[in-house]
Amino acid sequence: MKDIVYWREKIDNVDLKILDLLNSRAGFALEIGKIKRKLKIAIYSPEREKDVLRNVAGANPGPLNNSAVCRLYERIIDESRRLEREESLKDSNMDEIND
Amino acid sequence: MKDIVYWREKIDNVDLKILDLLNSRAGFALEIGKIKRKLKIAIYSPEREKDVLRNVAGANPGPLNNSAVCRLYERIIDESRRLEREESLKDSNMDEIND
Repeated sequence: MKDIVYWREKIDNVDLKILDLLNSRAGFALEIGKIKRKLKIAIYSPEREKDVLRNVAGANPGPLNNSAVCRLYERIIDESRRLEREESLKDSNMDEIND
Repeated sequence: MKDIVYWREKIDNVDLKILDLLNSRAGFALEIGKIKRKLKIAIYSPEREKDVLRNVAGANPGPLNNSAVCRLYERIIDESRRLEREESLKDSNMDEIND
């Protein structure tokens, strides 16, 4: 039988892959943030957030159930939005300096 | 310039990859849960949780900062633990039926 150390190593490896993808995702969200700022569209988009949750819940093979997946994705979306807002603030500070 | 739809498709694709890896991770955590039950070790392991956070924070390339990554991983760990507890409960109910 595999021991705890074996499974922990598997978790550590998969965590680094998840980390990379979360950062890629955040990068894509920042691109959307830039476009939204240019077009003066609000960052918060409740319909889009529902679509994101539908996308993952609809494709979820388990063992995590859909409630768990939605809780996780609410946090992921939340962190993306936070990052978009931070970038947006930086940008508007730069605008003030440049004005 | 790429438009919002383009980046949303990129996000939807990466979300499905993250979903798969989160579920793989949960499966590994369940294996650890089984071993812990067999050895009668507590599910909650604060030292291990710190190691998990150190692992991802130490390898984080951004744009998510380490605080965001740690908040995300606290949630991921929390969902793993919740799943382990649910499985553990199922098991102990089965034990009662089998006793």
